[in-house]
Amino acid sequence: MVWSRNRKIIFLFSSILGLLMVGLASFLPFMGAKAAAPKAMLTLTARQAQAAANCSKKTASPSQYQVIGNANTVQWGYFSKKSPPVLAVHSKDYVTMDLITHHAGDDYARMIQGDPGIESIYQWTASEKGVKERGPGVHVLTGPVYICDAEPGDLLEVRIVDLKLKPSGNPKYAGKTFGSNAAAWWGFHYKNLSQEPKPREVITIYEMDATGKQQYAKAAYSFKWTSQTTPDGKSHATIDYPGIVVDHGKVKETLNVLNGVKVPLRLHIGAMGLAPKEADIVNSIPPGYFGGNMDNRHVAAGTSMYYPVSVPGALFSAGDAHAAQGDSELDGTAIETSLVGKFQFILHKQAKLAGTILDKVDYPLLETPDSWIVHGFTFRNYLAELGPDAQTKIFQLSSLDPALKDCSTKLRDFLMNGMNLTEDEAYSLMTVSGDFAITQVVDGNWGVHGIIPKAMFNPKQIKPKPVA
Amino acid sequence: MVWSRNRKIIFLFSSILGLLMVGLASFLPFMGAKAAAPKAMLTLTARQAQAAANCSKKTASPSQYQVIGNANTVQWGYFSKKSPPVLAVHSKDYVTMDLITHHAGDDYARMIQGDPGIESIYQWTASEKGVKERGPGVHVLTGPVYICDAEPGDLLEVRIVDLKLKPSGNPKYAGKTFGSNAAAWWGFHYKNLSQEPKPREVITIYEMDATGKQQYAKAAYSFKWTSQTTPDGKSHATIDYPGIVVDHGKVKETLNVLNGVKVPLRLHIGAMGLAPKEADIVNSIPPGYFGGNMDNRHVAAGTSMYYPVSVPGALFSAGDAHAAQGDSELDGTAIETSLVGKFQFILHKQAKLAGTILDKVDYPLLETPDSWIVHGFTFRNYLAELGPDAQTKIFQLSSLDPALKDCSTKLRDFLMNGMNLTEDEAYSLMTVSGDFAITQVVDGNWGVHGIIPKAMFNPKQIKPKPVA
Repeated sequence: MVWSRNRKIIFLFSSILGLLMVGLASFLPFMGAKAAAPKAMLTLTARQAQAAANCSKKTASPSQYQVIGNANTVQWGYFSKKSPPVLAVHSKDYVTMDLITHHAGDDYARMIQGDPGIESIYQWTASEKGVKERGPGVHVLTGPVYICDAEPGDLLEVRIVDLKLKPSGNPKYAGKTFGSNAAAWWGFHYKNLSQEPKPREVITIYEMDATGKQQYAKAAYSFKWTSQTTPDGKSHATIDYPGIVVDHGKVKETLNVLNGVKVPLRLHIGAMGLAPKEADIVNSIPPGYFGGNMDNRHVAAGTSMYYPVSVPGALFSAGDAHAAQGDSELDGTAIETSLVGKFQFILHKQAKLAGTILDKVDYPLLETPDSWIVHGFTFRNYLAELGPDAQTKIFQLSSLDPALKDCSTKLRDFLMNGMNLTEDEAYSLMTVSGDFAITQVVDGNWGVHGIIPKAMFNPKQIKPKPVA
Repeated sequence: MVWSRNRKIIFLFSSILGLLMVGLASFLPFMGAKAAAPKAMLTLTARQAQAAANCSKKTASPSQYQVIGNANTVQWGYFSKKSPPVLAVHSKDYVTMDLITHHAGDDYARMIQGDPGIESIYQWTASEKGVKERGPGVHVLTGPVYICDAEPGDLLEVRIVDLKLKPSGNPKYAGKTFGSNAAAWWGFHYKNLSQEPKPREVITIYEMDATGKQQYAKAAYSFKWTSQTTPDGKSHATIDYPGIVVDHGKVKETLNVLNGVKVPLRLHIGAMGLAPKEADIVNSIPPGYFGGNMDNRHVAAGTSMYYPVSVPGALFSAGDAHAAQGDSELDGTAIETSLVGKFQFILHKQAKLAGTILDKVDYPLLETPDSWIVHGFTFRNYLAELGPDAQTKIFQLSSLDPALKDCSTKLRDFLMNGMNLTEDEAYSLMTVSGDFAITQVVDGNWGVHGIIPKAMFNPKQIKPKPVA
């Protein structure tokens, strides 16, 4: 494996530790070890300078990096072009990173306790928080990773080389991984409950074999959400703040849930993408042209996502790891769990895209071994289309009908630009062979994805892939 | 095979041929041979009496029937509880029937010529039509088949035992089957064309190996629709009447379409279902609780559809055969072709459904070898919900959002009633393992289907299937 040949556990930026201490809301990245990290503030400018410095040192073969998930390597609830990178990498480099679930607080003992990184993220006392800013969205996002030489107009290919369950850090649950499904107020089902009490939010905790030998999850228990009080003294009658640690003395656990049911695992990444250019802080919940919280269950090991770059360095982040989810993510969440992902980044410069299958791709595109998958949304670019209040409005305008229109337009254009088809050929082919599915109906900017099989094309008659 | 052991080519009702000649819009069924059939009119009452008579003669083992598709065995464009049956069968009987495409007129030479049954259906001169009534919908539906002893409240299981391409009857195209994809004005794409001239309708003719050895379709040619004149002297600037035979002297054929592309075959039945109770004539286009034009590509050989019976005898019909279609049927049609289907009918009496996996199923349900699939629509029962103008209104109210709500409600209820789950278990399970896809967006009552895998359940903890 390339991994063992050139592994680097690097402590980026460590040379300037302590030199720059400024009050910006940014954290020093800490990587490669689980011990408590020294904390320091570093300006965006300084981090970017550091990234630029690292970018100037290119090695002959791809480098390997690791980013441990902890309070210093994540941001909670947003994508931001202003976020200082945790790492700068060159095209073709590999990065292994922890993807820590934002639902771990549903069962502290099983999903937080004993893992110093996760503990540091969730740390919250009356006087301090491990991650100072949470919101406006909900996802714990590892990153961002700065891609050297990436500029607006380029396309970033993110190959998911590997994706593994992260074992519980608690010795009591050795060899197990747990996940939480929250049937929550933002779920599509929430106004469609048939039984009392309604409405209600219900958490189901799922248990998995961390070794991956058993390819299924089983429900461990469930509980109805009851009002929880956070260290700041606030009460939360519903799941209205990210990362609330549930007091299990205040909920009633129901055992023997989903007896005998073995839910097939579908490890994938719910939220992954680049920093958008339109706003400084972008809520992590609604997906868009930059990817983000697409919640497509096909974004799994062995696939590649292509994202249009809209800010220098691309600024890649990932989180919202899922053990299993069906198309639609109906009740609001998947089996939310923590995973470890290994990624390779391939930068496709704009100038080299013409004449390739990726020509004019300005939307998030997934390549699986068997298919190309385009992603449509209620709004193609809600940040630009909905004006200054876009991040509020988007949650009031959700609909699948325009998402299918957006998705079918993108698939048509992909077939015309990448597969050399006329418009009439494209529409006929996508009708007789393309499948449109409901990606999610819980993230504001609702999603539809269109799948086109690869095998039906004659490689000689379509455009080539760009040289990596 | 059961087939060879007990094959019956029967001429139902032949004993009363010529005895009853009345002016109702009904036709004598003609089965079992391709020669021209004597035509006669038979009242609904007489046909029903005949069906009842046939129902009284039950044999020990299931019978086998065949219905050749011709002008006497089909109705064009509607489901009707008033339609005289072409055949009466008992539960467990088998029926092989031709499913003749309503798009054969797009290429008379390849899809009509040389097949006496199809010729008789499309026959249209200034003085007469092979099938007198066409509309208000578009599908050529073979049937109806009267199921002995079926009563409202029962559930009819229709097993698709086999599904085969019907070879062209034209010796010039021996060994081939052809299909038509019409990118038509009712397509979802129609208002989203990027190139001129727009709008436009485009027909693409696909060619297949009738033996089924080559499991793909290739485009033969395409043409833009131009105004066509029918034998009644009317002009059709768009595809506004079913079964127009295109004058190929008036269109320009484009060759070398979709070069090198091999579209995977997915033989399935677009429209299949029972007569609804709500109206005498029901447009064949919008699907509903009775099934009908669901256009679900999963309705294929080896699967079973379950339909709630709402009229005596159930009155099963089928048509709209498809060689391939993707989820959504985006441009308005599939690869529309003619198939031969072999069905077995299993009648599940209402009294025997309690305590089984089919308990309270009052919607169209599909069982595949791997999964259960429920079907949701913009309106669960548009005929009842939209009042007297339901059959017009439905085309103005199409949306996927309520279709997902309907579908998820049905899937929840299926999991609660059939799989013994609580509501909380049902919503969690369908979220983490159930896939919701877009069935079609071209039939007025738009469709979403929800797929739940079978293998994850422990058979001991779910309800049993009813005894057939």
